[in-house]
Amino acid sequence: MKNIVKPYKKEFDYSYTSGASVTIELLKTKPELVEAVYIHTSFNQPDKIESLCARSNVPCCINDTMFKKINQKENSYVLGIFKKTASKIAKNESNVVLVNPADMGNLGTVIRTLVGFNIKNLVIINPAADIWNPKTIRASMGSFFHINFQHYECIDDYLKAFPNHQKFTFMLSGEMELYPGNIPKPQLFSLIFGNEATGLDENYKIIGTAIKIPQAATIDSLNLGVAVAVGVYLFTFDS
Amino acid sequence: MKNIVKPYKKEFDYSYTSGASVTIELLKTKPELVEAVYIHTSFNQPDKIESLCARSNVPCCINDTMFKKINQKENSYVLGIFKKTASKIAKNESNVVLVNPADMGNLGTVIRTLVGFNIKNLVIINPAADIWNPKTIRASMGSFFHINFQHYECIDDYLKAFPNHQKFTFMLSGEMELYPGNIPKPQLFSLIFGNEATGLDENYKIIGTAIKIPQAATIDSLNLGVAVAVGVYLFTFDS
Repeated sequence: MKNIVKPYKKEFDYSYTSGASVTIELLKTKPELVEAVYIHTSFNQPDKIESLCARSNVPCCINDTMFKKINQKENSYVLGIFKKTASKIAKNESNVVLVNPADMGNLGTVIRTLVGFNIKNLVIINPAADIWNPKTIRASMGSFFHINFQHYECIDDYLKAFPNHQKFTFMLSGEMELYPGNIPKPQLFSLIFGNEATGLDENYKIIGTAIKIPQAATIDSLNLGVAVAVGVYLFTFDS
Repeated sequence: MKNIVKPYKKEFDYSYTSGASVTIELLKTKPELVEAVYIHTSFNQPDKIESLCARSNVPCCINDTMFKKINQKENSYVLGIFKKTASKIAKNESNVVLVNPADMGNLGTVIRTLVGFNIKNLVIINPAADIWNPKTIRASMGSFFHINFQHYECIDDYLKAFPNHQKFTFMLSGEMELYPGNIPKPQLFSLIFGNEATGLDENYKIIGTAIKIPQAATIDSLNLGVAVAVGVYLFTFDS
């Protein structure tokens, strides 16, 4: 039983789920990664989690001190400690690229949206919010365990590795306004979104088709998670 | 100069903006509501804010103690104290209804999305997250000052007050799947969304057309802000 759990840090080779439903998702989807599950004495429905642990030979322990050790602010009564493992995105499937996403909540919400709209592959260009952080995983509502992701140090490395995807960059200065009637439907596409505060710089225009989601000038821009949702919905719906 | 500022509470008759850009939005849009602006000595570009204050005769003060008094966690160097005032939604315009939204971040993001997609009217059914809380206003990125909103104690009160709007309830059990090709385009519509955790209960089905945004069964549901964004985008785009 792993008993060295401390407040999460990015350099750890493990992370944890916080909360019953996301831990259940972990146990159902990736039981082989789980090192231990802790249940707080205040949690009143441990049976389901205990039986999921038993099924996969995961140590499961009712132990309140662990919740103090990791010093989490949320009121969570279930923790699932799991190993971080490398993930690879599929070369023959479409993907979404986030360039320097800074907010873990946004990152988790984007993952939830992608899984909901059947995009299984997420590319992240560093520097970026930590995808393994328990806050990101919690914001993803467990969909974290259903997505493939891969980090690149710069966009050029990604472009070299994925030359066959048709690229669409979401930019306020994009010439093409995105309406349901004019959605390109290439076999393999890559939808590229910038950082929350700065968006994509003008150099991204030459990478592919620059797209703008029509929006009132009253706002500076749409929220990143909202832009991804509208873009992915439009590219993936079956017309 | 208002000098009784304390950590925000819901029962206060004033609230505040936290951060330069949202305070600038307040001063540009609703200067008549602003009681005072405080600038931290660490803020290095006070000129624009000072001149906006001067233009509207708003007291503006460089004062660090105020930032400690309100005990905010964010690193913000500008505060705009403003009076809460009642707002009314337009009867002859379409609106969005949030039933018991619980999260201030989601509420702020929804406001930003509505303003971006030209929906000016937001109905909130109590109990709900505090729309006046500085966190909601910050999440709205200043678009809070561009939306009309009104609270109702229950959905029936709202329905009585707005009998002419065609109602669409967003529910996972909705019979109508929402695709760009089948969007109803009534003159006056009302898009109704439930609480983050529970959605709308089955009683909402008789209120209007129950709609589902197509999504993979892998996720429990889309994030509230994402569902609102996709729904509002589809109902408002000019085809």
